[in-house]
Amino acid sequence: MAQNPYHQLESEFKRLYALRSAANLLRWDATVMMPRGSVEQRGEQLAVLETETHTILTAPKISRLLDRAHANAHGLNEWQVANLRCMRREHDHAIAIPSALIKRMAKATSVAESKWRDAKQQNNFSLFAPHLEELLKLTRDRSQILGQALKLDPYDALIDEFSPGLTAAEIDQVFATLSHRLPALIQQAIDKQSTETVLPITTNVATSTQRILALELMKTLGFPFDQGRLDESEHPFTGGISGDVRITTRFSVDNVLSGLMGVLHETGHAMYAQGLPVDHRDQPVGSDAGMALHESQSLLIEMFIGRNRAFVQYLQPLLTRFLNASGAEWEMENIYRSLTRVRRSAIRVNADEVTYPIHIMLRYELERELLAGDIKVKDLPEVWNQHMQSRLNVTPANDIEGCLQDIHWAVGAFGYFPSYVMGAMIAAQLMEHLRNDYPTLDEDITAGQFTGVFAWLRQHVHSAGNKLPATALIHDITSRPLTAAAWLRYVENKYLEQA
Amino acid sequence: MAQNPYHQLESEFKRLYALRSAANLLRWDATVMMPRGSVEQRGEQLAVLETETHTILTAPKISRLLDRAHANAHGLNEWQVANLRCMRREHDHAIAIPSALIKRMAKATSVAESKWRDAKQQNNFSLFAPHLEELLKLTRDRSQILGQALKLDPYDALIDEFSPGLTAAEIDQVFATLSHRLPALIQQAIDKQSTETVLPITTNVATSTQRILALELMKTLGFPFDQGRLDESEHPFTGGISGDVRITTRFSVDNVLSGLMGVLHETGHAMYAQGLPVDHRDQPVGSDAGMALHESQSLLIEMFIGRNRAFVQYLQPLLTRFLNASGAEWEMENIYRSLTRVRRSAIRVNADEVTYPIHIMLRYELERELLAGDIKVKDLPEVWNQHMQSRLNVTPANDIEGCLQDIHWAVGAFGYFPSYVMGAMIAAQLMEHLRNDYPTLDEDITAGQFTGVFAWLRQHVHSAGNKLPATALIHDITSRPLTAAAWLRYVENKYLEQA
Repeated sequence: MAQNPYHQLESEFKRLYALRSAANLLRWDATVMMPRGSVEQRGEQLAVLETETHTILTAPKISRLLDRAHANAHGLNEWQVANLRCMRREHDHAIAIPSALIKRMAKATSVAESKWRDAKQQNNFSLFAPHLEELLKLTRDRSQILGQALKLDPYDALIDEFSPGLTAAEIDQVFATLSHRLPALIQQAIDKQSTETVLPITTNVATSTQRILALELMKTLGFPFDQGRLDESEHPFTGGISGDVRITTRFSVDNVLSGLMGVLHETGHAMYAQGLPVDHRDQPVGSDAGMALHESQSLLIEMFIGRNRAFVQYLQPLLTRFLNASGAEWEMENIYRSLTRVRRSAIRVNADEVTYPIHIMLRYELERELLAGDIKVKDLPEVWNQHMQSRLNVTPANDIEGCLQDIHWAVGAFGYFPSYVMGAMIAAQLMEHLRNDYPTLDEDITAGQFTGVFAWLRQHVHSAGNKLPATALIHDITSRPLTAAAWLRYVENKYLEQA
Repeated sequence: MAQNPYHQLESEFKRLYALRSAANLLRWDATVMMPRGSVEQRGEQLAVLETETHTILTAPKISRLLDRAHANAHGLNEWQVANLRCMRREHDHAIAIPSALIKRMAKATSVAESKWRDAKQQNNFSLFAPHLEELLKLTRDRSQILGQALKLDPYDALIDEFSPGLTAAEIDQVFATLSHRLPALIQQAIDKQSTETVLPITTNVATSTQRILALELMKTLGFPFDQGRLDESEHPFTGGISGDVRITTRFSVDNVLSGLMGVLHETGHAMYAQGLPVDHRDQPVGSDAGMALHESQSLLIEMFIGRNRAFVQYLQPLLTRFLNASGAEWEMENIYRSLTRVRRSAIRVNADEVTYPIHIMLRYELERELLAGDIKVKDLPEVWNQHMQSRLNVTPANDIEGCLQDIHWAVGAFGYFPSYVMGAMIAAQLMEHLRNDYPTLDEDITAGQFTGVFAWLRQHVHSAGNKLPATALIHDITSRPLTAAAWLRYVENKYLEQA
């Protein structure tokens, strides 16, 4: 029974999916469950699984099948056509880079990551510098080769690995608008907030209690516990696969809001994964549409829904009941103010949503200049600090709080950072549209009714899977190209509102 | 850089090892961590991983490499020669059975297992009977084909899947001795115990407390928690891989000893897995030597070490301290008597070590007769009950406590049961030797010193990996063939002792 080329490709990608989802679980387990002494062995297992998937994906058989399926595409439905495009993209990415370069890159990142940890611990950038240099060199080669193969600008080829279809031109346009408007906006927000009193919320809450509260919150949001879990890890993340999504958070005894907001963030990621089209689950077209769209879903839930007055009205009684908390710091307005505090900070992961894009634009500009050779690695700490000063009026106390703070470059993830801000822009543009379709949104949120929000997201965003590139999908849904306009309106409205 | 055939084989088996160890973790996770709604998806993942390993193992390339490596074996060391033999065995097993039969068997067992659950729940053997019939038919075909390929008697080929190298002739010899001696021995033990008072130990202990105690016990035994975990599951098992071994147990609030003995049993399995030769970990020769030897290691710790006066002297103060327990039932002799109670029971998993072989011999005889067609499936319940009556003087109340009690046949595991008893025989023969080498064993156990036991086991048993078939290894270690003699001496000494 000879299958047609398209169905043969589906079988091959089903194999890939099983191997990748196994690797996914192994990574989740390594972070959440695995005993510490098994790190090296787990690394070897994962390396073999990666080699197996790479071998399947780069087999000449796949090239032939793709060509034959393309030539016989007339009988395919729109999902199949889109799937074929996704398959082609994966294959093109995989065959573009020579194995020798992949190996050198794997080795270099493994060393660089460990040196970065040393450098960060010892506040000694020079320990990391030569390894960053090496990674930049290899990344330049990679981006050249990849760009040629994909007919993309080299840097666009790097972005495409994380957010398929997104380009530096689109990012530049958004960032230009933000650069123009954000500095004044930040100042205005800070000025306005300077007149408001905020009591610190530091009541100690046992993490076991926080966990019960988090589970209750996730249940209310509609997280399907028969298809997912919540665990704890130092760096919160969403792992697993659609149908078995595993989120983690970190609870701090003296900062209950931070743990809960983390849970909201990861629940946004998780609901996206759970809402992907089940019928195409084991195919590339059934996967998510990249990091920018994924981040839009977590930000939409954490920032746009969670750090919102309507949500605080729902949350406050829940908090006081579960935590048995009372006093002025637990009053509604104080909670809201705590959740929406705008502050200039040197650290990206501590930044509020208004100053956050500044951190990203800085990184975006610097990584492009580093790749172009316009900045020398040895000058990075100084250039970083100058940028922080001029853009945010903050000078990092040292390189730990400066150019050593993020892991991304140390693991070779160049072209990743812009996804964070593009995700915020997507979330804002979707949210405007959602509010328009759903006039009673805030009343429902206050009543703890989230089915409407997720039904809308599932229908318009999640169920599209990877059928369209993220920016095209947003254009389709909102009938407008993706810009910074909705996000700026949202920030102005939220942070400069007159009570 | 062309590698020699043997090293190419090592690379292929390293790939297999990574895929299998990934599947292993997926199975552990499915039992211990996975949300219930993901069962079907996990099944698909595992099926793909199994297909991948089967494809690698049955590739014509492996046949060619095995032949070439065999022809060039003069340069290989003894581990490599043994590894080549193990590789050949795995390959021969894998290529023997046609894919069509493997698929039919997989489908039939999947249906049969589910029908067995229904039948057991409803006490209705007829629901399961046609599926058992089908499995027997397929197993007859499998054993014929496998036997021909491996040049083994068909039933020996089935045993060989679980305990490489073990034969029905060796089992028959052991079972003949046991059949001859055991009925009288059981009666004598029961008569002797009938004069002794045993107070039931039913103090309720929170499972969280039992868990702390279990972890303490495992720590004392030397379980390496940086390379393993303890979790809970309905059916205790040892999962994971050497270097990351994961055991589970089941705690009952009103039966603290049962949970602890379960932990000892699985710790025995775990210490074997952890003691396998690290240098050969990713090769067939570095794996365990089959189910019989594996079971010997769990029984040696649970039965020979754990249910022993010296151990109770160590355990009793620990129990009373951790559980804050006192009273006559917690006295040393009462704990010992509880742990060594001989009772005729219809249920295998509840049986003590003296009556246990009866349960296995019954199953061994019946499965051979079923496969030979000497018993009809429809007559199984009656024949089962007759056997139980004549061998153990017990009549099961119904088929739930009779021929429906075990899952083994429902999942097609014919040839598995004898491993349990052969494991006990191996444990006894090793234990005699160990006691001889280690005169202060009991004093050390009472003092909570287990390093000597595990050092001996690691040196003689664990570190041999799969270098020799289990029976040959036991012969090597004890300078005698494997028989029931040591086990009978052990049982007589333990259960008929004059205080």
